[in-house]
Amino acid sequence: MATSAETKLLHIQRHIRAFVDFPREGIVFRDICPILKDPAALSAVIDLFEEHVRRNHQHVDLIAGLDARGFLFGPLLAQRLGVGFVQVRKKGKLPGPTASVAYELEYGKAEAEIQKDAVAPGQKVLIIDDLLATGGTLYAACELLKTLQAEILECVVIIELKELRGADRLQPHAVFSLLQF
Amino acid sequence: MATSAETKLLHIQRHIRAFVDFPREGIVFRDICPILKDPAALSAVIDLFEEHVRRNHQHVDLIAGLDARGFLFGPLLAQRLGVGFVQVRKKGKLPGPTASVAYELEYGKAEAEIQKDAVAPGQKVLIIDDLLATGGTLYAACELLKTLQAEILECVVIIELKELRGADRLQPHAVFSLLQF
Repeated sequence: MATSAETKLLHIQRHIRAFVDFPREGIVFRDICPILKDPAALSAVIDLFEEHVRRNHQHVDLIAGLDARGFLFGPLLAQRLGVGFVQVRKKGKLPGPTASVAYELEYGKAEAEIQKDAVAPGQKVLIIDDLLATGGTLYAACELLKTLQAEILECVVIIELKELRGADRLQPHAVFSLLQF
Repeated sequence: MATSAETKLLHIQRHIRAFVDFPREGIVFRDICPILKDPAALSAVIDLFEEHVRRNHQHVDLIAGLDARGFLFGPLLAQRLGVGFVQVRKKGKLPGPTASVAYELEYGKAEAEIQKDAVAPGQKVLIIDDLLATGGTLYAACELLKTLQAEILECVVIIELKELRGADRLQPHAVFSLLQF
C-alpha cells in the first residue's frame, strides 16, 4: 500500500529537531540529522521531491546542490530522476575554471563557486538545499547558474523559515518546500 | 543484461579528471564532478560499493559520511542498504552535544565533529568518502566513532592515492577503494 503524501510529511516532520541559540544566540537551528538516520524518512523526502518535480516540470537536465547539506539530498533526487548532479561549493574547493560570487549569510559572509563546464547554456536546472532561511546561499547559486546561462526551474528545500522571507529574495525564481516553520 | 563490474569500473574511471597543481603546487587533484554529472557513472559507483558491502559484511547499522564529498555518495549507499546515514562534519556545523577531534590535513589543519547521539555503542558503522589521500580526515572520523564506541567495519572510498599510504595510517581498519592511482 502506498504511503500518502500527508503520512510521509508527518514522518519527516517527526525527524527534525530544533536547537535554540545555535550557531549563535537568537537562532533556532533546524537539525535534519534524524531524517538521514531513518531510511524511511530520507526516502520520504526524496519521494515527495520526485513527485513534485514530475508533476511540475516536463524536463529537467540537472540538479545543482549546495555545499554541504544540499549534497546529502541532491544526488538521491538526481538518481531518481535519471539526471546528473552538479556541485555549488564554498570557494577554493573546485578545480579548473570556475565562476564565483560573493554573498551575505544570515551570520557572516562567504563566496560560492561552480565549475564553468558544470552546466551548458540553456540547460534546465533545479537547485536543491536542505533549508531556506534568508536565501543568501540559494541566491548566490542562482546568480552562478545565470552566469552560465542555465535556465533555473526552481529551488527545492525540505524546510522553509517563512519569517525570514527568503522566497521573496529569490524571486522571480520559485521555491518549493516540504515543511514551513 | 547486467553490466559487469569491470565495465562499470571503466565507466567510472572515464569520469574522473586530473587537475595538476590544485589546490596547491605539486598536488594532482582527482575531480569526481563528471561522475556526478553522469547518472550511469554515479549509479555504477553505488552498485560496486553495495556489492562489496553485501559480500563482506553480514550486518551494517549505519553509514558515516565525511563533509563534504562523502555526503554525495553516503546517503545513496545507505538507501541501497536500507540503513541510516550520519554526518562527520567540519567543526561548528552540528548542533547539540558533539565529540570533536583535531587532525592534520595534506595541506593545513582542521577539526572534525560528530553528534554524540549519532551512533550507539556497539553499532556497526561503515565510513565513506570520495578519496583516500594521506588519510587524515578518515583517521579523524575513526577516532570520533571510537569515542562513541562504534564498531568500525571499514572505510570505503572511490579513489585511493596509493603512494600517500593512507591505508597504513588507518590500520587496523580496512580500506576498500574502487580505483587506485
